[in-house]
Amino acid sequence: MQPPDQTRVPSGADTLAAVAAATLAALRAKSPRVHCITNTVAQAFTANVLLAAGAVPAMTASPEEVGAFVAMSGALLVNLGTLDRERRAAIDTAIETAIARNVPWVLDPVFIDRVPFRAELAHDLIARGNRALRLNAAEFRAMSGTEPTSRNVAQYAREHGIVVALTGATDVVADGKRQASVANGHPWMAKVTAVGCANSALVAACVAVEPDPWKAAVSAVLIGGIAGEIAARHARGPGTFSAAYVDAIHALDADAIASHARIQ
Amino acid sequence: MQPPDQTRVPSGADTLAAVAAATLAALRAKSPRVHCITNTVAQAFTANVLLAAGAVPAMTASPEEVGAFVAMSGALLVNLGTLDRERRAAIDTAIETAIARNVPWVLDPVFIDRVPFRAELAHDLIARGNRALRLNAAEFRAMSGTEPTSRNVAQYAREHGIVVALTGATDVVADGKRQASVANGHPWMAKVTAVGCANSALVAACVAVEPDPWKAAVSAVLIGGIAGEIAARHARGPGTFSAAYVDAIHALDADAIASHARIQ
Amino acid sequence: MQPPDQTRVPSGADTLAAVAAATLAALRAKSPRVHCITNTVAQAFTANVLLAAGAVPAMTASPEEVGAFVAMSGALLVNLGTLDRERRAAIDTAIETAIARNVPWVLDPVFIDRVPFRAELAHDLIARGNRALRLNAAEFRAMSGTEPTSRNVAQYAREHGIVVALTGATDVVADGKRQASVANGHPWMAKVTAVGCANSALVAACVAVEPDPWKAAVSAVLIGGIAGEIAARHARGPGTFSAAYVDAIHALDADAIASHARIQ
Repeated sequence: MQPPDQTRVPSGADTLAAVAAATLAALRAKSPRVHCITNTVAQAFTANVLLAAGAVPAMTASPEEVGAFVAMSGALLVNLGTLDRERRAAIDTAIETAIARNVPWVLDPVFIDRVPFRAELAHDLIARGNRALRLNAAEFRAMSGTEPTSRNVAQYAREHGIVVALTGATDVVADGKRQASVANGHPWMAKVTAVGCANSALVAACVAVEPDPWKAAVSAVLIGGIAGEIAARHARGPGTFSAAYVDAIHALDADAIASHARIQ
Repeated sequence: MQPPDQTRVPSGADTLAAVAAATLAALRAKSPRVHCITNTVAQAFTANVLLAAGAVPAMTASPEEVGAFVAMSGALLVNLGTLDRERRAAIDTAIETAIARNVPWVLDPVFIDRVPFRAELAHDLIARGNRALRLNAAEFRAMSGTEPTSRNVAQYAREHGIVVALTGATDVVADGKRQASVANGHPWMAKVTAVGCANSALVAACVAVEPDPWKAAVSAVLIGGIAGEIAARHARGPGTFSAAYVDAIHALDADAIASHARIQ
Repeated sequence: MQPPDQTRVPSGADTLAAVAAATLAALRAKSPRVHCITNTVAQAFTANVLLAAGAVPAMTASPEEVGAFVAMSGALLVNLGTLDRERRAAIDTAIETAIARNVPWVLDPVFIDRVPFRAELAHDLIARGNRALRLNAAEFRAMSGTEPTSRNVAQYAREHGIVVALTGATDVVADGKRQASVANGHPWMAKVTAVGCANSALVAACVAVEPDPWKAAVSAVLIGGIAGEIAARHARGPGTFSAAYVDAIHALDADAIASHARIQ
């Protein structure tokens, strides 16, 4: 018999680690199709991260084809990078299809801090009802007009009725009612292109299998952050880190998530 | 003197392994230019696989430029992924140039099982006389309307007068008269994006140096499958596998092909 | 006390190694934004090389957005690969913005030896006053109509008032008055796609922090060549070399530059 003082009462953090493990297991069991309209810089890495997690990516960004792809997908990612004319048209059709077919979609407003035009588009898209928004501090400032504090993230999430996943040294995931801070990750994640973009795709993949988008987003940032820590041990720098990151996501299991998770 | 029972009569499989080794040697000796109209997800990996095999890739998909590139290439790959408007126009010009200049071309009908529009295009393209078709089981079903059995693959090849390379756990390469089954490969090949696309480019490269397109296609799937097996030994997961795959193609030689080949 | 015969008088080569070390240190200290209009094959690798060196890449090639990106960048790279219609329009706007805002820009005339149309464009662009031109032997022939000798490179640089960085087994960097030959590098650099393209981006990054474009270009080819030599020691072939190359740029320091540099 276990003495009471060794009994571990499941805390919120334990619960979220278990949620992430269950979401990852669901990804592998269900292999959801995730359609990604994403920038050409991030496509290959994003596809490899999704495959490693168990999802099946497709990346067509042609207005004529994107509807057919989205209609048979479990989730849609809209990433605003390398935003050419066809991508803009494809985004419109893709979101229309997602809404009509009840396919959840996630927005990654890449570099909206750099181009006013792109920030306007992001605002318009948010109004069409995405499930989650993943961005960094600079993009949050451009999106909300406020500093990226926990309070402001929660308020923005509440006002827009979406989940916000703000990633950085510590990730904040809020839906207005609930909030989690994830301290996992590694500095090399900021030295490899497309890690943030791939993480947004992972949010989309998790949203495809976990109906609660806040739990899905927490799962995604936790999976990404822990994979980053494990990858760093097998890497000599950001180049080998990139490959090791994909390996780590592929090998990740409930034990590794439970033992690494640093959630508040 | 060798006693008769140890004499090894060259079987068809041995011959094909030797053909693949000779094709790879020809790739390295002749460094053919291979023009690839391929999807943006697969471009970098495909280019690296071609370079590792000895070929010289070019990837322009602009209608204004593609003709000049194809005219000076040893082979053309047409891959239907990320099929935007410029790619569609480029495909038309590229095939026209290939036919006029007698440049052999290979079709990879990516995801035609997902979009009816793309399946129609693939049918139209096949009618223009490509040398080989590389696809997976789902794409074969969409292309032929039949199950991907050896018999159906052979029949489709015969009817259309082309080589069909169907890849999967076991690869089937048929031209209607001849047929080979290649059991080489590794499950991680399905967990890395663009391995199939790169294999189609390898078929094109082999077609550039081996006049018999069936032998060329068998060579390509054999080189790819064996490289996958070797790569898996040097990898920790699909991320490091991807780099090890390129290494393995670069290091592949006749001995490794002969000792690994599992052909029926 | 050191006897006089052991005193090392700083030679030109030592000075250039020190210049490269200082340029790399400046990249890390200032993290300049480098906007790259580059081909879709090279984008991810180029972005990772720039990040490893300390720069911050952006890659949008949309005419509507590129001006805003260039205006806030420390340098612009124009690479003519995968030259579609939007890229051509974006190049025009990007250079116009670069000139108006005094943002230095670098040209990489990829494959101008293959398409007359592209060679014409390269000539037109040169006339608009770029800071440096990075190219290989075949591209130099197409650009200048002369053989890629040191003398011809120097003359072309003088006539056009630009820095020319011709890369190959030995790199030649000339501005008409000064000339350096860099013998660093590794054969695998020619077996990995986008190494040359990424090196051009590195020239742009160095031009963003070093006002003398000749010193900037010498720094970039030296950093690239030395990283290639170091990477080869950690690689099994061109696949693992690619990741090791990014690691090596990330880890490069003044000591490694000084001990490896082979400059004449």
